[in-house]
Amino acid sequence: MMETIALNQAASYVSQVVRIKGHLQGMRDLGQIIFLNVRDRAASIQVVVERADLLAQVRGLALETPCFFEGSMQARQGRATPSGQNGAPTTELVLTAITPLSPVTETCPIEIGKQSKIDGLAPQTLLDYRPLTLRNEKVRAIFKIEAEIVRAFRQYLDEQGFTEIHSSKLVSTGTEGGAQLFAVDYFGRRAYLAQSPQFYKQIMVGAFERVYEVGPVYRAEEHDTTRHLNEYISLDFEMGFIQSEQDVIRMQVACLGHIFAEVAGRCAKEFALYGITLPQIESIAQISLSEARELLIKQYNWRPESSVHDLDGEGERLLCSHFEKSEGLSMVYVTNYPHKIRPFYAMPCANGIQNGAGNGVAGDTTINEPGSRSFDLLYGGLEITTGGQRIHEYAKLTESMKARGLNPEDFGDYLMAFKHGLPPHGGLAIGLERLAKQMLKLPSVKQTALFPRDINRLTP
Amino acid sequence: MMETIALNQAASYVSQVVRIKGHLQGMRDLGQIIFLNVRDRAASIQVVVERADLLAQVRGLALETPCFFEGSMQARQGRATPSGQNGAPTTELVLTAITPLSPVTETCPIEIGKQSKIDGLAPQTLLDYRPLTLRNEKVRAIFKIEAEIVRAFRQYLDEQGFTEIHSSKLVSTGTEGGAQLFAVDYFGRRAYLAQSPQFYKQIMVGAFERVYEVGPVYRAEEHDTTRHLNEYISLDFEMGFIQSEQDVIRMQVACLGHIFAEVAGRCAKEFALYGITLPQIESIAQISLSEARELLIKQYNWRPESSVHDLDGEGERLLCSHFEKSEGLSMVYVTNYPHKIRPFYAMPCANGIQNGAGNGVAGDTTINEPGSRSFDLLYGGLEITTGGQRIHEYAKLTESMKARGLNPEDFGDYLMAFKHGLPPHGGLAIGLERLAKQMLKLPSVKQTALFPRDINRLTP
Repeated sequence: MMETIALNQAASYVSQVVRIKGHLQGMRDLGQIIFLNVRDRAASIQVVVERADLLAQVRGLALETPCFFEGSMQARQGRATPSGQNGAPTTELVLTAITPLSPVTETCPIEIGKQSKIDGLAPQTLLDYRPLTLRNEKVRAIFKIEAEIVRAFRQYLDEQGFTEIHSSKLVSTGTEGGAQLFAVDYFGRRAYLAQSPQFYKQIMVGAFERVYEVGPVYRAEEHDTTRHLNEYISLDFEMGFIQSEQDVIRMQVACLGHIFAEVAGRCAKEFALYGITLPQIESIAQISLSEARELLIKQYNWRPESSVHDLDGEGERLLCSHFEKSEGLSMVYVTNYPHKIRPFYAMPCANGIQNGAGNGVAGDTTINEPGSRSFDLLYGGLEITTGGQRIHEYAKLTESMKARGLNPEDFGDYLMAFKHGLPPHGGLAIGLERLAKQMLKLPSVKQTALFPRDINRLTP
Repeated sequence: MMETIALNQAASYVSQVVRIKGHLQGMRDLGQIIFLNVRDRAASIQVVVERADLLAQVRGLALETPCFFEGSMQARQGRATPSGQNGAPTTELVLTAITPLSPVTETCPIEIGKQSKIDGLAPQTLLDYRPLTLRNEKVRAIFKIEAEIVRAFRQYLDEQGFTEIHSSKLVSTGTEGGAQLFAVDYFGRRAYLAQSPQFYKQIMVGAFERVYEVGPVYRAEEHDTTRHLNEYISLDFEMGFIQSEQDVIRMQVACLGHIFAEVAGRCAKEFALYGITLPQIESIAQISLSEARELLIKQYNWRPESSVHDLDGEGERLLCSHFEKSEGLSMVYVTNYPHKIRPFYAMPCANGIQNGAGNGVAGDTTINEPGSRSFDLLYGGLEITTGGQRIHEYAKLTESMKARGLNPEDFGDYLMAFKHGLPPHGGLAIGLERLAKQMLKLPSVKQTALFPRDINRLTP
């Protein structure tokens, strides 16, 4: 029995007779010879058809037909490529038999093997034909990279003593108190889709000290932007017995360093399709929000869009570009956000906002607010992580809830863990689609979600 | 600075001064000496308090207080245990300093460190106090085992060329045509929670040939049983270019073999808490549904509950017990189910039901129905997997839909993948909570779901 090989191994089988399995994704008929382009799960290859009986057989096949292809693997130098020039050395299969595995009767509306055609599609079309466009090697590369990001995330945290958990996505209250929740009819009662595993991962600090979760989260935000999805994959971790939010940041820097190194190594071919060389991550700069605002105002003539003591999209872009110039990495932690613009569970900062930045900026009224041990990580101008130290004392947590107008009685199960002792702890969440978007410098997170959901899109 | 160690390393630090971090989960006050029991993420240990100042300090602490404990690690032979007998050689910490990290003012309603108390709790109480009961070493062991099951599942499939995917859980139609779906208000439109990633993983066979997904699935079934959850974690895979459902079975047998070996090795302490020795899996018996019914009726005097040509709970238990006796493993694949009791996408069997079993059994009317290349895997009397080969030809699939009264136009995105060529493929889904329940011989899947959801339970 002939060996069936995957196409990323083709070069090791030169001069051997093998079988490959894949989809016929291109056909160039030169009369006496036909060049096929065949895609399998790993790569694509040229298949050369010269025998008269085979020429007739392949002419009857529609693109995307899945087939077995048998033949002899050959290394050829300088063979004329479909574009008529002399090609680089390449491996190709000289066909001796073809077995179609499924009848395809309609012409494919998308030329999956033609990269220029795919690149030219409108974003809407790319998503409307998702079951087909995902077959394109450059499009599917995004999801190979995401699989490797997630694999490396888990691998690093496993080594650090974390335990993976799977918390429920059907909840009775929101983590932030009720806004932006999708409602579910749960046997006549009202349930919601979880905005985050926040409460569960904090509860689990009491059981496993260090936990992580990779799963979907839901935000009923009426956005239709390049940075928002209504359902996305959140990479969450939470760790106990910390000194401050700096322990959380240190864990993430090391984890991202591992992820970037692993993904660069395992997805070299995929990044090459996008012309991307990933940076190495050894350290990531930090700046307090107040200092960031001062820097942007003084050095970049930034004028905040809003009177809230925060950054806007333009501020985030300028700040990342500043650190790309100064540190060689377009990433920065923005720390010490005012407590009032962070969730109730954020740990307040004893010293409040530590920097006098923004004085004299019109509308910058929040300068004397208490700060928080929370942070955002910006990457290439986009927030890819929010995290921080959490309040771990029961009395302080219920006080913080009340200060937001929340009723602690609505959070009884969550508070049970605090009433009976949680250590100082903190954690964060990474948006998978945003991280992949920024790695690949893509225009929208809709490209990095396998089957994206937004206010206008519930299919495919 | 003193080294902080995890308790599974305690034996390596005998005679050294170390710091441990954990929750105070037990205290036995003998006047001149107090024995504490301390739990960290990995294990628990006895801490001996003899110094007068420390005796006074620990007496003021409530159980479950998280603390740092400093002291000298000692190996002691034959020290009197709390029950008054001479104990086996053990490692304990002789306390020199203790730092409480969070004030605990209330007495814990659950004695987390007392196994007999936890074992005696009503199932309902165990779940009502989930944020606390999950801290118990034997309870949390279940979720350590589940984390390792999932890790080994992914590891095996990664090595076999599978790619992990994350499909949307918000869908516009159900995979089975609309029954048992939870409805979601999606910006004024009606969406549903996905019952399975079935359609998406089949679509993705066209892109990656082999895919897997680990994620939540939803069934709006009004059951309240020991084997049903309304939300559970499904371990799905799907693979292309197969010859028959036997390729899928072979992949699962090897994958389960890997999972059982990995989990037995990495969770020896956890299985010991349950007195369980996991079997090794090298092969798993197969029997057709008709043969199984004949065997049960003739050999075990089984009388089917229903007239449907299927197995009931009693039949499943008898069958597993039969194969445990004959093969030494309480697992069996039941194959060749009648097509009409399987989903529309199941591949029909050319030969129909191949066995004359059940003739003469009252009500066994389906014997001449077409069969299917689908199977269930039973383990210890419980179905833990459903899988099979799928229909891959567009025309046959739409025909099968119509035969069930489904309108192919409602499945346009799914069918797009078939219209443009999917290879012969198949796959399966493993219910994580059921697999863990059977491994641990637990009475209910509610014990193996971290935060279970059933018709009566939406919290914690």
